[in-house]
This record gives sequence, structure tokens and C-alpha cells, in this order.
Amino acid sequence: MSPQKIANSPTQTCMRKMGMSQHGILEQLKQPKYEGFLDDFRQQSFAKGQLISLPGSANNEVFIVLTGRTRVYLAYEEREFTLCYLEEGDIFATHTRAFVEAAKDSSLLLVSAREFGQKVLQFPELSFLMTDILGEVLSSTLDIIDGLIFHDVRHRLIDFILAQANENGQQTDQGIQFHCDLSIEDISMLIGTSRQTASSLLNNLIRDGYVAREGRSRYTITQPEQLAALVE
Amino acid sequence: MSPQKIANSPTQTCMRKMGMSQHGILEQLKQPKYEGFLDDFRQQSFAKGQLISLPGSANNEVFIVLTGRTRVYLAYEEREFTLCYLEEGDIFATHTRAFVEAAKDSSLLLVSAREFGQKVLQFPELSFLMTDILGEVLSSTLDIIDGLIFHDVRHRLIDFILAQANENGQQTDQGIQFHCDLSIEDISMLIGTSRQTASSLLNNLIRDGYVAREGRSRYTITQPEQLAALVE
Repeated sequence: MSPQKIANSPTQTCMRKMGMSQHGILEQLKQPKYEGFLDDFRQQSFAKGQLISLPGSANNEVFIVLTGRTRVYLAYEEREFTLCYLEEGDIFATHTRAFVEAAKDSSLLLVSAREFGQKVLQFPELSFLMTDILGEVLSSTLDIIDGLIFHDVRHRLIDFILAQANENGQQTDQGIQFHCDLSIEDISMLIGTSRQTASSLLNNLIRDGYVAREGRSRYTITQPEQLAALVE
Repeated sequence: MSPQKIANSPTQTCMRKMGMSQHGILEQLKQPKYEGFLDDFRQQSFAKGQLISLPGSANNEVFIVLTGRTRVYLAYEEREFTLCYLEEGDIFATHTRAFVEAAKDSSLLLVSAREFGQKVLQFPELSFLMTDILGEVLSSTLDIIDGLIFHDVRHRLIDFILAQANENGQQTDQGIQFHCDLSIEDISMLIGTSRQTASSLLNNLIRDGYVAREGRSRYTITQPEQLAALVE
């Protein structure tokens, strides 16, 4: 069974990939027909933990992640909720109600939204790509709302695990192995719960034999069909 | 105090206006420079309660509401959650995980997303408008997530009331009067709770003197500052 096969729960194709790597935007922009598009972008480095943008900030910029990983999150008083992580090749804008921070040392290409818009006018085919990207971001936020409204935390954790496997899983003799270097605290902020709850739910899945964990960042779904069945 | 003045809670500018009437898209499209843009749209009527689109349907269309009101909602088993209502001049797409139904008898202009994209290529300035619209839709969904994660139902109800007043409120001697023809059940599905809970919370706000209700669809916020302070 391929990892794709387990992705049949409606919320499962979702969690938290607003990233646009699948569009390979950097690759696309290297095509001769887009020559000049990236000229006005400036490159800037951010150290792990550094804030890239705040909600309500006046400057409205579009950025592409060159290296590293950035976290997009909502915050209220002491609480945080992670909307998504952006990886190499992902594109996003600073002008939202979300915070953006460097989750690892990161290097970005930035340009003002105004200049970006002018550029797209010069390369109108890119407007299709932009519409696709915004559509996917929107789709991800609808997935999040769906999860929050209709499903409990355990369901959201299982969705997260299945989505990770779906994205980078490899079939092995033991099951579907995938790599995920997010900490339990990171995961808890993605599914909207406390670190303690996320940890205890994950340990239950491990104890019940659905998932195995090797080291800090490697997991195997030992019973993929049964795990998917838990959220059907 | 103008109705705008009370809109200082972060989530308050939000609830459930993904509609794009403020862009007056139909007005804009009547400009000579956009002549021909609407030519390939077909007009179609939907009776109150009729489904306009289902998640996962193959046809991917863009539509503009000419008359009436459509409801965009998520559903799971017996439960529904309303994302937004679209009114005259609002634009949306059918190709999302949401259901769209006619909340009143409605008339829409529809076109396939592919043709719509081709049209935008012919009128590249429209890509700015489209980006704005998608950005606003995205922003509304982030508001919803923010409300669901960080605020309880009472907070979301107050946000809803303040947003309604902000959108169509009139200052009167009694306070800020606004019109809202949504039923308590409609409102409960917008804020993600049961009809009973929404009704009891609204009655508490009325009993405590923050809000008065006249007839089925007219409300007055009698103590706007105090009401806004409840969610600060």
C-alpha cells in the first residue's frame, strides 16, 4: 500500500501545509520567460526565533523562503496557535493578522506587495500561479476550521500524523516511515492543545501499537489502515 | 461616537464577511475598460434552500451574486458551521471544501474557473482585484480560527453583534441600531454553537441591558462601549 492510499479521510489531506513547495515556485521563476521577475527582491537573513512580521504592521511584503523554516502563528495573551510552517520555496505575505517568525535560521527573498503586484502585471501568467497559491492557503485554513469545529484533539493529532506520512512517508517492512523534526510542543501548537495533552495522546497511540517512534524525529505508522480507521 | 469607534477589539472587524460588496465588483466591471468581461458568464436562479455546490464536485466555477443571499458552510455528519453569507455583488468559487446553498431565492452569474482565468489574463488589472478579494477571504478565515481557538462562544457572539453594528449600524438616541435578518439558528451556526446556547447568551445580553431587540430583525446596542469592553 502506498502512503497515498491512506489519505482518504476528508480532513486528512490538510493539516498545515500552506507551503507552496509543490509549485516549486523558485524552479518556475528560473525559467527564461520569467527573467527579471526576482530582480527587485532583496535577500535577508533571520536567526532562529527572530520575528519576521507582526500583525498590523504597516509594511506589506511578499516573501519566498530560500532556506530554513518559518512559522506562521496567531497569538492571544500567552497562547499561540501555529497556522503552518513554510519551507524552502514557499511563498507568503506579511500583511495578515498572523505573526511570522524564523523557526530555524532562515534566509528569505522579500519584496513589497505593491512591487510584487506590478511584477505580476508584467508577467500575467504568474497571476494563475498566485491564484492557485492563495486558493491553497484558503483551502488549508478551511481544513483548520473544519478540524477545530468538528473534530477533537485526538482526531486532529491523527490527521496530522497521516498528513505527515502522506507528505514524506516511505513504505518499509515495519509500515510507513516518515521524518518529522517538530517537537511535541510544536505539534501541540499546530493542533490547538497543550503540550501535555499532545504528548499523552501520542504516547497512547504508541502504546496501542499504531505508531512507533525512533529517535527524536523518525516515526513509523505500524498500522496505517487501522490508524486511518480511527478517524473515519 | 460613530459605530466605527467601537471596532477596536482585534477579532471584531471580522466575523463572517467574506463578501466582497465593498469592492463593488459589479460596479467596477461596468466600467468601459472591462467591456466584455462578463460576456461568458451565464445567469442562473436558485430557490431558497437549493444547493449551489458541493465539496469535491468536479466543476470549478466562479460566481457573482446578482440578487439574494448564499450561505457558505462546512458540514460533518449532522452538524453545520456557516463560514459566511454572500450578498449582492459578492464573488466566490465553488471549488472549495465548503457547501454553498441559496439562503434566499438567489440569482447568480457563473463562469468556469478556467474561463475566468483566461478573462483575467485579458484584463490583467483585474488580477489586483482578485488578489485583494482572496486576501480578504483568507483574512476572514484567519479571524474565524482566531475566534475558535482563543475565544469562547459568548465572546464570539459579542464579536458578531459588534461586527454587524460596524457594518450597517446607525447612531440613534438609544444607541447603535442595526438590522440583521439572520435567525438565532443562523447566528448559532456562524459562531459554532447550538441554537439553545446562542439564544440563551443573547437573552443574557438583552437582560443585562447591553442590547435591545425590536421585532425580528432590528437590534440596538444600548451600551456600545460597555459591550465592547466585555471582549477586550
